[in-house]
Amino acid sequence: MSDMLDAPSAQMNILFIMYDQLRYDYLSCAGHPHLHTPNFDKVAASGVRFTNAYVQSPICGASRMCFYTGRYASSHGAQWNGFPIRVGEQTLGDHLRRNGMACWLVGKTHMKADVDGMERLGLSPDSLIGARQAECGFDCWIRDDGLWGEGPDGFYDEKRSPYNEYLKAEGYPSQNPWADFANAGIEDNGDLASGWMFANADKPANIREHDSETPWLTRQAISFIEQAESPWCAHVSYIKPHWPYIVPAPYHDMFGANHVPQALRHEIEREDPHPVYGAYMDNRIAAAFQRDDVRQKVIPAYMGLIKQCDDQLGVLLDYLERTGRMQNTMIVLTSDHGDYLGDHWLGEKDLFHEQSVKVPLIIYDPHVRADATRGATCEALVESIDLAATFVEVAGGKAPYHIIEGKSLMPWLKGETPDWRKFVMSEFDYSMTPQCLKLGLEPRDARLFMVFDGRYKLMHAEGGFRPMLFDLKTDPEEFHDLAKGDDSRSEIDRLYGYLAMWGRRLCQRVTRSEDDIKAMRGRSARRGILPFLFDGSEVPDELIEKYRGRAPQRPLKT
Amino acid sequence: MSDMLDAPSAQMNILFIMYDQLRYDYLSCAGHPHLHTPNFDKVAASGVRFTNAYVQSPICGASRMCFYTGRYASSHGAQWNGFPIRVGEQTLGDHLRRNGMACWLVGKTHMKADVDGMERLGLSPDSLIGARQAECGFDCWIRDDGLWGEGPDGFYDEKRSPYNEYLKAEGYPSQNPWADFANAGIEDNGDLASGWMFANADKPANIREHDSETPWLTRQAISFIEQAESPWCAHVSYIKPHWPYIVPAPYHDMFGANHVPQALRHEIEREDPHPVYGAYMDNRIAAAFQRDDVRQKVIPAYMGLIKQCDDQLGVLLDYLERTGRMQNTMIVLTSDHGDYLGDHWLGEKDLFHEQSVKVPLIIYDPHVRADATRGATCEALVESIDLAATFVEVAGGKAPYHIIEGKSLMPWLKGETPDWRKFVMSEFDYSMTPQCLKLGLEPRDARLFMVFDGRYKLMHAEGGFRPMLFDLKTDPEEFHDLAKGDDSRSEIDRLYGYLAMWGRRLCQRVTRSEDDIKAMRGRSARRGILPFLFDGSEVPDELIEKYRGRAPQRPLKT
Repeated sequence: MSDMLDAPSAQMNILFIMYDQLRYDYLSCAGHPHLHTPNFDKVAASGVRFTNAYVQSPICGASRMCFYTGRYASSHGAQWNGFPIRVGEQTLGDHLRRNGMACWLVGKTHMKADVDGMERLGLSPDSLIGARQAECGFDCWIRDDGLWGEGPDGFYDEKRSPYNEYLKAEGYPSQNPWADFANAGIEDNGDLASGWMFANADKPANIREHDSETPWLTRQAISFIEQAESPWCAHVSYIKPHWPYIVPAPYHDMFGANHVPQALRHEIEREDPHPVYGAYMDNRIAAAFQRDDVRQKVIPAYMGLIKQCDDQLGVLLDYLERTGRMQNTMIVLTSDHGDYLGDHWLGEKDLFHEQSVKVPLIIYDPHVRADATRGATCEALVESIDLAATFVEVAGGKAPYHIIEGKSLMPWLKGETPDWRKFVMSEFDYSMTPQCLKLGLEPRDARLFMVFDGRYKLMHAEGGFRPMLFDLKTDPEEFHDLAKGDDSRSEIDRLYGYLAMWGRRLCQRVTRSEDDIKAMRGRSARRGILPFLFDGSEVPDELIEKYRGRAPQRPLKT
Repeated sequence: MSDMLDAPSAQMNILFIMYDQLRYDYLSCAGHPHLHTPNFDKVAASGVRFTNAYVQSPICGASRMCFYTGRYASSHGAQWNGFPIRVGEQTLGDHLRRNGMACWLVGKTHMKADVDGMERLGLSPDSLIGARQAECGFDCWIRDDGLWGEGPDGFYDEKRSPYNEYLKAEGYPSQNPWADFANAGIEDNGDLASGWMFANADKPANIREHDSETPWLTRQAISFIEQAESPWCAHVSYIKPHWPYIVPAPYHDMFGANHVPQALRHEIEREDPHPVYGAYMDNRIAAAFQRDDVRQKVIPAYMGLIKQCDDQLGVLLDYLERTGRMQNTMIVLTSDHGDYLGDHWLGEKDLFHEQSVKVPLIIYDPHVRADATRGATCEALVESIDLAATFVEVAGGKAPYHIIEGKSLMPWLKGETPDWRKFVMSEFDYSMTPQCLKLGLEPRDARLFMVFDGRYKLMHAEGGFRPMLFDLKTDPEEFHDLAKGDDSRSEIDRLYGYLAMWGRRLCQRVTRSEDDIKAMRGRSARRGILPFLFDGSEVPDELIEKYRGRAPQRPLKT
C-alpha cells in the first residue's frame, strides 16, 4: 500500500458501482455453480465480501433513495419508483461535499425530483442547487435510467436518453434504438423480436456488443475518472442485468437450459399462503416465471448479462491498474435488489425472500487499515444505508448520525468487531400495484415490513393481515411459514418488539446533532432564563445581576 | 347566521388564539372555583368546548410546531425549543394559501429557522419565500416571542423585540423594559424586584396595565384585523400567562392565598417513582413549587395573568361584534401546554399528567353548519394537530392527509359522530435537560411517549426504563402508577400495541397523496413497461405495437 494512504484523511476516491437487479448468489465468489465472474471475485479477493447485506426496500427507486440518503424508506418517504424525494432531504452529495469530496453520477438513479417542493421554495432546476436537488444530490456526468419503454401513452421516462442519442449518432436508424436494437433481436423473417417478450430472450440483441448498454456506461465511467480531480465519489450505476432480458452476442448463448438450476419452490408455499404473498404468486410476472420454458430462456440471458457486467468490470479494473488508481480508489460493488427468477413461484423482486432483499456487497479499500481483511467475508447484518455512513468516513468526515441512519462499515473493513445491530429492516410499499387493488386496501395500508435477526425473518403487513415468519436456520430456503401455526408466538413477539423499537427511532431531528445538543445544554440560564428562583439566592450573582439594582421610576407618558 | 355562510367555501376568517402555558382547568367554563373568565365562557357558550384536547408535546416550541404543521413531533423533528424546523417542512401557511387564505402571525411562535438548510438551498431570509421559511410559514404582522431574558452570555433571544421597542417609545427608560418594567416590580426601597423571583410574584408589575404585554398584543391583533382582506387566518399568540409570574395592577391582588387550591399531590407518588419522573421531582423548578409559600405567591399571579387575558379577549370580542365580524370569523382558543403549579410535586410542564399535556380548546364557528352544537362540550380524544386539518376545510380545501396527520374537527362542530381515533399521542424530548444528564442518557435516548386511550395513560421512556401507567377512571388524579406492579400487564401491552402501530404510521410520503397513487396506477404498462410477456399475446396489441413490425437491419458503423 502507498504511504499516502496511512491517514484516514488521505485523498481516497470512491467508485460506487451498482448493478440493477443483480442477485446476491449469481456470482462465482458467492458460489454460483455455472456462472464464472473472475472480476467480481478479484475485487472480493482483495477486499471484503459481505454475505448478509440487505436493501431497505426491494424495489429500484425506493432502494436507491435509501442508499443515497443513508436513511430508511419510511424516513425519506420516497417509497416507490417515481415518488419524488422531498426537496431538502440530504443525500450523499450533501454529506460528501461538506467533507471536500465531489459526488458524481454516471448512469441510473431512478430518482424523480420533487418539482412541487422545488417550486414552493423557488428553486430552479437550472441553478446548481436546483440541479442537485433534481438529481438526488449528484452532479451528473451522465444520467441514463435505462428504461426507454414506449407505449400508447408515450415514453415511460420522458427525460432525454444519452444512450439513445449515442446509438442514433452511431447510425442505428430508429427514434428509440434502445428498444429496437439494444433490447430486441430479429426474427428469422427479419421482424423485430422485442426483448420484452421472454420468447426472444435467447436471441442475440440486434446491436454490436461494443454499443450495448454495459460497455457504453463503462466507457462513460472511464471518461469521468480520466478527468476527475481527487477526491471524488462516482456512482457508476448500470441498468443491467435488469430486464428486458436480452443480451448481445457472444453473451446470448454462453449459457443454456443445462445451466438453469431447479426453481427453489415448494408446493407447501401455495397452501394457505399469506394473502399478500398469495396475491403476488397470482400475478402475471409470477405466472410467467412459474413456466419452466420461461426460466430456461430467461435465466441464461440473465446470466449472459451478468457475464458481460463482469467482463466490463474487468475493463474498469484494468484501467484503474494501468493508471495507478487502484491505490487510492475504494471500489464498492452492489445491487439495488435481487430477482426471484421463479423461486418461491415468483418473478421480479418486491417481497422479502433472500432472492429479492439480499444483495451482493463487496468493498475493496486500498488503505493499509484494511490489509487485515483482504479476501475475507463478513457475516454481519449489513444494511444498504450503511454505505452512506462509510463513505463520509472515507472522505475524512464524521457521519452525521442524526441524519444518516446507517452505520459505518469501516470497523469491519479494519477487521474489528464493533457493537452491531441485532436486526436488519426492510420495507415495501405496494400501494401502486394491482395486488393492493386485489386485496382491497387503501394505499396507506399497502405496506410491508421485514425484520430479520440473522435467523428468524418476520414479515409484518399493514391492513390487518397475519405476519409471516421463517427460520432460516432450520429452513434456509424459506419454504415453511411458521406464522401459520401458533408454535412460534414467542419469536414473533420478539421480532415485533424489534419492529416497535425501530418504529420509535429518532429519524427526523435532522437540524440538531447529538453533539450540538450536548453543547447547547444549560445555555438558557446564562442568557437570563431563570424560571425557578425564589429570591435569587439559588444561583450565582452573575446570572441575575441584570435583574438587580435600583429600578428607574415609572415615567409619565411623554 | 348570515346567509353568506351557507356554503362551506364562503369567506370565513380564522382567529387562532393561543395563550402560552394556560392550564385546561383555569377557566370558569372548565370549572375553576375562583377564577371567573366570562369571555372564554362566552365563546364556549356559542361554540364547542373540547374537554379532551391534548398537545403532541408538552413544551412550547415542539408543541407549536405540531400545531403549525399538523404533524407529530417525531414527524417534523423540531422536538425542543430552538430545534429548527427543517426547511421545506410544510405548515399552515402553505396549506391555507394553497386554498386562497392568507396566514398571518401576531405574536409568539418560538420557531427557529433552519438557517443551515436555507443556506444549503440558497434561500435568503430577505425573499418572500425565505422569510416564510424563516417564520414557520407565517407572514408576520408582528412577531414577539416574549422571552427577553438577559444574562452574562447575552439575550436568550437575539431577535429584535417589537414589544421592547414599543415600551422604549413610550418612554420606559431601559434597554430592556420587558425585564425592568413589564416583568418586574419595585421593592419598598425602590430597588427592582424581578419577576423571575417568586418572592416578587405578589408585587404589581412596574408598568401601566395598558402597556403590559397582553393588552399590547390585543391592540396589534385588532390593527391587523382592521386592515386584513378576507379570507385570512390570524394566529394571535399571547406570551401570557407564561412565566415570569408577575402582573400589573389591578390584577396583582385580585386573588390571594385563599384562592389557591391544595396541591394535587400524594406521598405515594414519591415512593419508588419512575426514574424519569423522580428526576423531575428533584429538579429546581419542582423544589420551588413544592413550597406552599411559592404556590401562594405564584398561583394568584398566574390567575391574575389569566384574568387579564380574559378581559383582553373581551376587548377583542367587542371589536369583532362592533364591526360585524362575528358572523364570518371562526374563533379558536387554546394553549400550547399547561402548568403543574406544584401538582404531582412538579413545576412547569414537560411530563404527561393532565395538568401538563391537556389544554383548553374552544372553537366558535359562526357558520350555520355549527348551529347544532352551540354551547356543547365534546369529549372526543382531540389532538392539537387536528386544527391544521380543520383550518384547511374552513378555507374550503381538502386536508392533505399524506402530510397532515391530524383529523378535521369539522364533523364534531356539526354535531356528527365520525369514526375517530382510539388513542392520543404525545411525545417529550428531554435531551437538553439536566434530567438527561442526571440519568446518564445519550440525547437520543432521552425521549418519552404518551399513549392515552381515554381511560388508561401509558408513558413509555426510551433508555431501558419501565413504563408508567395510570387508570384515569379509578384514579383521575393520576397518583397511582399501575406499572409498578404486574397486575396491569394486559393494559400495558394493549397500549404498547397502539404505540407500535403509531410508530409504523405513514408520515414522510409527503410528495404523493393517496389520490395521486390511485390515479397513477397501471400507467407504466401504457408507457411501454411490459416485464411479463411471453410472446405478447397476454396484452392488447396497442400496448406492444411499438415493439412489433419489421426491424431495420443493423447499420455498418458510419
